Amino acid sequence: MEQTMFNPDMESLSLSEQKKMEKDLLLDQINYVYKNSTMYQEKFAKAGITKDQIKNTEDLSLLPFTTKQELRDSQKRLAPFGDFLAAPAHSINRVHRTSGTTGSFIYTALTKNDLDLTHNCGARAFWAAGLRPHHRVVHCLNYCMWMGGYTDHANLETTGASVLPFGVGNARQLIQIIKDAGINVISSTPSYPNHLEKVVKAEFNMDPQELGLELGLFGGEPGLDNPVFRQRMENTWGMKAQNANYGVSDVLCNFASVCPDNYKLHFLGQGALLVQLIDPVTLEDIPVTQGAMGEMVLTHLKKEAQPLVRYRTSDLMEILETGPCKCGRTGFRFRILGRTDDMLHVKGINVFPKGIAMVLENLVPEVTGEFQIILDHPSPYTNLDIKVEHGPHITPDNKIDLKLKIEKKIKETLNFKGRIELVKPDSIERTRMGKARRVIRNYE
Amino acid sequence: MEQTMFNPDMESLSLSEQKKMEKDLLLDQINYVYKNSTMYQEKFAKAGITKDQIKNTEDLSLLPFTTKQELRDSQKRLAPFGDFLAAPAHSINRVHRTSGTTGSFIYTALTKNDLDLTHNCGARAFWAAGLRPHHRVVHCLNYCMWMGGYTDHANLETTGASVLPFGVGNARQLIQIIKDAGINVISSTPSYPNHLEKVVKAEFNMDPQELGLELGLFGGEPGLDNPVFRQRMENTWGMKAQNANYGVSDVLCNFASVCPDNYKLHFLGQGALLVQLIDPVTLEDIPVTQGAMGEMVLTHLKKEAQPLVRYRTSDLMEILETGPCKCGRTGFRFRILGRTDDMLHVKGINVFPKGIAMVLENLVPEVTGEFQIILDHPSPYTNLDIKVEHGPHITPDNKIDLKLKIEKKIKETLNFKGRIELVKPDSIERTRMGKARRVIRNYE
Repeated sequence: MEQTMFNPDMESLSLSEQKKMEKDLLLDQINYVYKNSTMYQEKFAKAGITKDQIKNTEDLSLLPFTTKQELRDSQKRLAPFGDFLAAPAHSINRVHRTSGTTGSFIYTALTKNDLDLTHNCGARAFWAAGLRPHHRVVHCLNYCMWMGGYTDHANLETTGASVLPFGVGNARQLIQIIKDAGINVISSTPSYPNHLEKVVKAEFNMDPQELGLELGLFGGEPGLDNPVFRQRMENTWGMKAQNANYGVSDVLCNFASVCPDNYKLHFLGQGALLVQLIDPVTLEDIPVTQGAMGEMVLTHLKKEAQPLVRYRTSDLMEILETGPCKCGRTGFRFRILGRTDDMLHVKGINVFPKGIAMVLENLVPEVTGEFQIILDHPSPYTNLDIKVEHGPHITPDNKIDLKLKIEKKIKETLNFKGRIELVKPDSIERTRMGKARRVIRNYE
Repeated sequence: MEQTMFNPDMESLSLSEQKKMEKDLLLDQINYVYKNSTMYQEKFAKAGITKDQIKNTEDLSLLPFTTKQELRDSQKRLAPFGDFLAAPAHSINRVHRTSGTTGSFIYTALTKNDLDLTHNCGARAFWAAGLRPHHRVVHCLNYCMWMGGYTDHANLETTGASVLPFGVGNARQLIQIIKDAGINVISSTPSYPNHLEKVVKAEFNMDPQELGLELGLFGGEPGLDNPVFRQRMENTWGMKAQNANYGVSDVLCNFASVCPDNYKLHFLGQGALLVQLIDPVTLEDIPVTQGAMGEMVLTHLKKEAQPLVRYRTSDLMEILETGPCKCGRTGFRFRILGRTDDMLHVKGINVFPKGIAMVLENLVPEVTGEFQIILDHPSPYTNLDIKVEHGPHITPDNKIDLKLKIEKKIKETLNFKGRIELVKPDSIERTRMGKARRVIRNYE
């Protein structure tokens, strides 16, 4: 029988088994943090919490949040790894730095045990997305510093697949190698195949399907959640295009992926991470139940080098399903709605650009899917002005109907009033990745 | 007590223990090759040898050699890994391609067991060169395809040291990271620190010593065997500069390194490789004894994916010492004299450019160490014309004496007649790596 999961013991844990494991691991981890992490010793003391008060997973809410800014400050106080480093320096085995803009990056240190768990969770994700030991993968992410290069390569290898390190650039050479080395899986950013497609056609005079790729494992950028984009990629290359390595680099490289049965991200960090949700405005806990939305808050369950407690990821998450998936995995399914910075308040309703994107995706080909929210003044808002590209076959006569239809759908689905201005296809400027900027602020 | 070896069981094996282990492993390996490798099945049949004839290490000489051209031909017959692939395709876990010139590269496939042995031997080499778990290394080799990037990173990590993947380019960013991340070891080509030195001085207005590097682990290029070059690097950076990762990419990533006591390459591939020497002209075996010189021939002792038997490396090796080293390692010490292609026959004597280099190094500062052999016609030769750069302080009056002195030393040491033409310092054109081309052929 085919092995459908990389680590079935973890991936198919029942909810009660998972809760028990989480409790045991968390209490040990909190003890470890109290003992070894100077930053947390000070944070806990300041919050007036002692470790004896933490007896259950629920007691975690007594502990303060951790923010990215605190990690930066900690690494300024004690360069390079911060006073949240809880393991001796000689036990560190790999070091990454997030790319970040100047000054905003974080150095991530991992011990051998941290690496083993990282690779195990990463392999669960790639396996869930369809990777198997018989596959031959070319890994096309930059190997400089960040986790996407070296650590993702190691995650791919942990599945048992054959992995060839390639990196970025040299598209022509890459295509030659895909042909010559019998590569059937590509691992890259979702925007890269578009570039390769041009080179395949122009310089090899080939149809991309002739290259024989069966599977694309994508991460590091959004884009693949757009079903039109994904379907076009699958049709062009004849391969399954999978969102295969979602993670939060300050916390854990990869811990979520889609499965072949269900194009939704499955949580696969069992034993490594505890996931909580909070309202990013009130900071109140939101139970992780079907339909819940909130900012994802992560706590390490078993981390030696830089354990984090109640880390605010700034990622807005919606829980889609909590029962077992058809694939047998029990981790909840979710989607990322955007960043807390993207969230807009419209008459007390939280609006995410991604919500609007999802409404418009269902209206393709009447619209192209591209849009921009135009803000003329700061929050609060009573309604939102939205420029929407209509589809190529819309006549002037259809426009009024289409405008009303979109406004109605937005009201029904997202519960706020959007004032739609229809514009021509391709008239909204695209970024390098081929996506429009979603929010335009026309005020100081 | 400090652990002086990464794998003392292997690195301090007595000669008799090593011979016994080699015999046991070799007989198993030859059985495996007979059973699983189509290319060798055909080669052995053609040579009229059956596996029952191989009962001892010495019987290996009955088996035919393998050349790089045969590997290329094999990979043309059966792309991409050749009909010398002896393991099932699904067991391959990493794939490399040697850089090579167009068409001349080899795809190297490794199983998980092959990788474990590769990393173990690589870690022995880095540990011998001085790397320890408390060190923090930045790895500055290109991660694209070849072993030097990804596999050397994994070898470094296997020692337990902290390793940050960097790659090539962005010298300014690299220097900033060395400063910020407390890096104390650099792993790169030996020519790279020269470039970094300029950037440190010009853009950071710093003395390279202020960066705090303690150790340089070098490989991938020659250059470091020149004691003048090495001494200058050590003085400039205040670090120990070690030749730390010698290997043959078609066979085993790294299996030799210098130790802190003895700037000579130690063989560290115990349990992975059997080393033999042959005369590259007569193809006769030469015993591996102190002072022996010949082409290095390698046989895998425990390789699953692409086992090689009697592989001619084209590297000319001189055995320097066979007793135990002061460091406790028992692997023989050697140096590489060049490539078989560089070997010249002068009145029946084999002459290597490296031999001339070593004679001249002992005459610095009367000479700079740079020279060129000028050939006006093809082999055979009765003597060699050699342009030699004299040192900066040589007066016209000294020149005749110096010329005679060099000719005498060459005759005494290398046993052939060299006709020396002295030229000015820096008058011989250097390559990008700062070395002169050693042999100039002025004929078609």
